[in-house]
Amino acid sequence: MTKLARGLDQFPQKTIYVLLSLARESGMVNLGLGEPNFDAPREAIDAAINSLKSGETHYTPDPGTMQMREAILEKTKRDNDFDFDPETEIIVTAGSSAALFGTILATVETGDEVIVPAPSYLAYDPVIKFAGARPIFVPATEENDFIPTTEDIASVVTHRTKAMIVCSPNNPTGAVWSKSNLRGIADLALDHDFHVISDELYERILYDGNKAQSIASFDDMQEHAITLNGVSKSYAMTGFRVGWVIGSARVIDAYRKIHQNISVCACATSQAASTAALNDCEYYVQDMVSEYDRRRKLLLDRINNHIPLMSVTRPKGSFYMFVNVKDLVDKYLEDMLEYLRSEKVKSFYKKIPDVGKQWVNEGDSGSKISMLYLIAKVKTLTAPGIAFGPVGENFLRVSFAQEYGLIENALNNMQKVLEPWG
Amino acid sequence: MTKLARGLDQFPQKTIYVLLSLARESGMVNLGLGEPNFDAPREAIDAAINSLKSGETHYTPDPGTMQMREAILEKTKRDNDFDFDPETEIIVTAGSSAALFGTILATVETGDEVIVPAPSYLAYDPVIKFAGARPIFVPATEENDFIPTTEDIASVVTHRTKAMIVCSPNNPTGAVWSKSNLRGIADLALDHDFHVISDELYERILYDGNKAQSIASFDDMQEHAITLNGVSKSYAMTGFRVGWVIGSARVIDAYRKIHQNISVCACATSQAASTAALNDCEYYVQDMVSEYDRRRKLLLDRINNHIPLMSVTRPKGSFYMFVNVKDLVDKYLEDMLEYLRSEKVKSFYKKIPDVGKQWVNEGDSGSKISMLYLIAKVKTLTAPGIAFGPVGENFLRVSFAQEYGLIENALNNMQKVLEPWG
Repeated sequence: MTKLARGLDQFPQKTIYVLLSLARESGMVNLGLGEPNFDAPREAIDAAINSLKSGETHYTPDPGTMQMREAILEKTKRDNDFDFDPETEIIVTAGSSAALFGTILATVETGDEVIVPAPSYLAYDPVIKFAGARPIFVPATEENDFIPTTEDIASVVTHRTKAMIVCSPNNPTGAVWSKSNLRGIADLALDHDFHVISDELYERILYDGNKAQSIASFDDMQEHAITLNGVSKSYAMTGFRVGWVIGSARVIDAYRKIHQNISVCACATSQAASTAALNDCEYYVQDMVSEYDRRRKLLLDRINNHIPLMSVTRPKGSFYMFVNVKDLVDKYLEDMLEYLRSEKVKSFYKKIPDVGKQWVNEGDSGSKISMLYLIAKVKTLTAPGIAFGPVGENFLRVSFAQEYGLIENALNNMQKVLEPWG
Repeated sequence: MTKLARGLDQFPQKTIYVLLSLARESGMVNLGLGEPNFDAPREAIDAAINSLKSGETHYTPDPGTMQMREAILEKTKRDNDFDFDPETEIIVTAGSSAALFGTILATVETGDEVIVPAPSYLAYDPVIKFAGARPIFVPATEENDFIPTTEDIASVVTHRTKAMIVCSPNNPTGAVWSKSNLRGIADLALDHDFHVISDELYERILYDGNKAQSIASFDDMQEHAITLNGVSKSYAMTGFRVGWVIGSARVIDAYRKIHQNISVCACATSQAASTAALNDCEYYVQDMVSEYDRRRKLLLDRINNHIPLMSVTRPKGSFYMFVNVKDLVDKYLEDMLEYLRSEKVKSFYKKIPDVGKQWVNEGDSGSKISMLYLIAKVKTLTAPGIAFGPVGENFLRVSFAQEYGLIENALNNMQKVLEPWG
């Protein structure tokens, strides 16, 4: 049998397939995945159409069109209090996943260590391992508003530390790092000469007057900060596949070598659409965030005040909240398992592609069992906290990138099911 | 100073920048790069616009839309005499560069060897090395119509051989592998259990009644063949960034792990455009190939019958020819160098970004000097053969993805300059 590369064993593909298969089930309310339910802004679509009509169907310059790079420059000046040289310090990428993958490949290699606050976005762990490096997880606990202390981070820095990833606003917790939190990281990075990779994908989605800080806005971090962002979340433009990396000319020059081999350039049409979004769609971000906030408040009220056995920390940003289900697991794990193994439920999950063999297994975590229980009993999909690292055990990530009415129905059903146990 | 990954040193980025910088010079005729001068077909643009108007701005399924996968299936049945399961044996990628990068990462790793006929497409060497593997080049000489013999290939197979890349029609030579050539490779692959990665990007661009054969069309190669293709060259759709990988379910499952981290999915708009191109634009391919053929015949006639010190083998496919300039180098290297170092020329190249330091250096190859001479003296850009491997020394790759009239002007000027030396 032909051989395949073992490095790929890092990628926990199956979890994603199972969630996707479940999400497609009829009648399922999908609070499990992170795709905005909004359509892309009209201005972006019009710009894409105009670009196509005017024959912009060829390669763009590999770092992106100058219009797009300048739109990003205006955006970072406006929103993030820093600027950069659009000639040498930015690359427009084919989505922010490519941006993360390329940045990790450009900055770390075998034997290096990358500090990652956990719970963390699913892709960090496998991508770091794929580059031959080792993720060093620092727990960010609920007691600490899901932000690790600077002391905890400092305690894991070694001579092998080559980068740290900060995701603020955070996926999966909704935590937002304060300026002083970030200053602590910046000082460590400068002292020990490592890069801070700042994943700012949710940076426009903020509540209660919170402000997200870019670590690149610190004057002394020009060499050490690498900023990742994109249009997928802020403008509901997931299908366009446009992100970007901003960093020192050295980092961007290194990244560009990867970029020329994985992407050549981002889609020309999508760059035109994204340029319009950044230049003309501030109103759109505001409207979307208002609607997210309405959903967030609904979820907070219902989970903290009405649904038994669950509680949640108020997220400051992103469209996720990390719901604590420890009481449910502690008291009702056996009851949930019994239900999940019943003949009635078997007939449901057996039909779903990829799910059959992934249903209940020996040793499954409480967060997975809770997730499956809500799927089977309430037809509501959430993401198991354990998928974001061991510190996520006994949590569920609930996404509110979903219609208000559907969220409300899911909450009603959850309440009905859990009240007898409350 | 912060550390960057050393693996990136493989990527010969500068050559590309220099060519791009030169190509942008005013008055330069660009026969150096491989981008079709045609615009994308009207049907593809209309389909993209309709897709945008109907709100298809979200993620597509990660292996591509089912419409796109089915259009590819119909295409391979029609053109390539093979089929595949659109559910498990294909992934639509964000361009064919991603397809190559991901396929190499999915199939080889540190210590493995990949056989590559040389001269070869620029990206193979660095991508293979980036994966930690070693490219084993097998010379494909002009005497042999730029196709290595099966014996030569067999002689380099070892227990470390995990893949071989075949690019037919070939970049940079225009060679097309016959069925018996491919059968030889297939037998080796089966005997020694390695993958054949078939880069078929130019497979629709054929002349003189030649037919390109897909190695996946051999019944016994279902497990061992991996086919890479895309819409960039066949439909002049470089800006859309859509390619694909077809292989066994095992290979595609492995590839999918990379894909989910570098791309998530190809751009939704671009997939709609590509589906229409594959389904409705056969006429477009025919028209484009007729025009390429007209240019090819012009180049062949002028180079072989009128321009001294150059000769060229008739390319069977692609829009490249590999021009032999050995006589020019042997007889006039010193004269070319003298001209290139003159004050008059210095004032020209000094102004061009990236080029200054890359102009003439000690130990430069004859193919580079010839390329620079044609740039400075004839304002015509070609690609130096040496960039495609040492066996490309004393050759220039001439692309005819450029307007007929511009090619004709360049040839006129070349003839005028070289005739006194003839």
